[in-house]
Amino acid sequence: MAQDRYRARRHRLLAAVKQAEIDAVLIAHPPNVRYLTGFTGEDSQLLFGPKHTLLLSDSRFTTQITQECPGLETEIRTAKTLMPDFVAQALVARRLKRVGFEAAYVSVATHQVLTSKAEHVELVSVSGLVETLRQVKDKEEVAAIRRAIHLAQRGLAAIQALAIPEMTEREIAHELEHAMRRFGALRAAFEPIVGVGPQSALPHYRAGELPLNAAGFLLLDWGAVEPGGYHSDLTRVWATSKIPPKLDKLHRVVSEARAAALALMRPGVSCQTVDAAARKVIADAGFEKFFGHGLGHGIGLEIHEGPRLSPISKDTLEAGMIVTVEPGIYLPGFGGVRLEDDVLITEAAPEVLSSVPLGMSLT
Amino acid sequence: MAQDRYRARRHRLLAAVKQAEIDAVLIAHPPNVRYLTGFTGEDSQLLFGPKHTLLLSDSRFTTQITQECPGLETEIRTAKTLMPDFVAQALVARRLKRVGFEAAYVSVATHQVLTSKAEHVELVSVSGLVETLRQVKDKEEVAAIRRAIHLAQRGLAAIQALAIPEMTEREIAHELEHAMRRFGALRAAFEPIVGVGPQSALPHYRAGELPLNAAGFLLLDWGAVEPGGYHSDLTRVWATSKIPPKLDKLHRVVSEARAAALALMRPGVSCQTVDAAARKVIADAGFEKFFGHGLGHGIGLEIHEGPRLSPISKDTLEAGMIVTVEPGIYLPGFGGVRLEDDVLITEAAPEVLSSVPLGMSLT
Repeated sequence: MAQDRYRARRHRLLAAVKQAEIDAVLIAHPPNVRYLTGFTGEDSQLLFGPKHTLLLSDSRFTTQITQECPGLETEIRTAKTLMPDFVAQALVARRLKRVGFEAAYVSVATHQVLTSKAEHVELVSVSGLVETLRQVKDKEEVAAIRRAIHLAQRGLAAIQALAIPEMTEREIAHELEHAMRRFGALRAAFEPIVGVGPQSALPHYRAGELPLNAAGFLLLDWGAVEPGGYHSDLTRVWATSKIPPKLDKLHRVVSEARAAALALMRPGVSCQTVDAAARKVIADAGFEKFFGHGLGHGIGLEIHEGPRLSPISKDTLEAGMIVTVEPGIYLPGFGGVRLEDDVLITEAAPEVLSSVPLGMSLT
Repeated sequence: MAQDRYRARRHRLLAAVKQAEIDAVLIAHPPNVRYLTGFTGEDSQLLFGPKHTLLLSDSRFTTQITQECPGLETEIRTAKTLMPDFVAQALVARRLKRVGFEAAYVSVATHQVLTSKAEHVELVSVSGLVETLRQVKDKEEVAAIRRAIHLAQRGLAAIQALAIPEMTEREIAHELEHAMRRFGALRAAFEPIVGVGPQSALPHYRAGELPLNAAGFLLLDWGAVEPGGYHSDLTRVWATSKIPPKLDKLHRVVSEARAAALALMRPGVSCQTVDAAARKVIADAGFEKFFGHGLGHGIGLEIHEGPRLSPISKDTLEAGMIVTVEPGIYLPGFGGVRLEDDVLITEAAPEVLSSVPLGMSLT
């Protein structure tokens, strides 16, 4: 059953392989290998083409491959052969002439080994072959992301029940991850961002030593990885005492920006257009220069994947994509508001998969 | 103060830059950037040479760089310029002629951008420049690794106190990480390996759904990251009921292999020699083919760094290196024993920094 799923994905990759006029492609990026085979380990590569489906791995993974990829042709290197040499040998042994490689994930050092040890093989730089397939989620993937969101939301409920004013940002982050794992998450989707007061104005801040009661509000950006490896990604801001009017203003503008984006999210709409709609609301309110990042990104086996919603994106929405929508305004020294949800594109209205109340009140 | 430390490290890098006959080197690997500047963020590169010390970063990190690297010359790109283009611009603007780059950490895609956008700059592939410096730890680094070991050992004590027979491998792993964080660890050094019974024979196994009482023994491989970013890495095996004679036999052989390695660990001794000494004990006992990995590796800002103790290592021990010593025997279907400690090389006898009892008895 599961193997049919991976076979179907590889079949879809064939068209891109043919279009690139290569005999086969080497897949090196672990989430791409996983997407095409179900194999969850690292340091392994898939050689794939019309005549080849071969997983190159090492002895740490022999048992795991039998379990996760029954029937898949595999070659296992010993500790005496390094992976680049092993790959070169495989290419030479199969007399391949033109082989694609993922230029974004192969180091110059590895490439040097391949070109010198497989000198009669023409290596062709390719990009985005598997990533493009991964953008549109199938039914099982949508269900997995729903689970990842559910785990994140249960974690939130737990931390809301547990929190006391003296807890620090870092303690919140740790307790939150602990709760999500207890409910069945493999891990947090990323190190949670917990910013109390002014720290919420730093979009990349993680979690420091400020206690909750050091200011009247906090920003939380968090997510879970469900057992199948799919990610969720959410952000909210809460007031822990009376809501400051300035924060309330930011919150209203960001909520409007979010609504403006959601209103446009249909198959066929360019991601730039969606980003621009949210950005215009923020600009019209006078905060343009305080929204420095893109509006959103795809989620799946990675926390950041295609499509990108940003001013320079060339992507277009399709049914089955799941993307974050996360407008924000960050005022240095004061604080920031970001509202982030995970949104499924459908032929009808977009479905907001996450269901944490937007409001800043904790009660 | 802290800045002096980074300046001194960069000064030591100068010799390697001169030897490579380059005007400057681009440092792209985050632990290397951190080692040379104290900057803990990602996606940033250091351009360094006799006339240049320049951190190239983006606006997410502006505040952080000011705090972590006061006085360091910095250029911040906007969201409209991608990092490879930004780096190319910096090279061209400074009229550099020969620039080294870390071939193991620069992708072919990035290299293509650099060569096309900085076409008059000769890019020279270099490897191990900073990694070589990082192998020998200074006093503060030794203290940091001691802290990381202490955190791991406190975590162990907590999990020993908390464990009940019904807990699964995954629950053990999660509770252990939670405990280490509570004591001040940033995170686990890696996803802990918890293998009950036969699962202990898989060196790469993580943690699954077997409860502790599914077999009479378990293997635990774990570590902590202390606040400064340094790692610890330990492994032990415990019996949860009567010790099976076969397991006892493996344990005795592995302990002897460990002792044989420790007896040789002095400055000037080749890492191959140390590996061979442990391997010989295991081979003499008839288990050679059941010890499939190297004897150990350096630890520091990364969980695996130089030197490597293995049959193909070309490294030599020096005073100030901290390496794991981790002989193991893995019998498929039965189980495995690995004993792993963190060892500081000194001019006198090696100092075993970890202090978890070797025995398999829990009481």
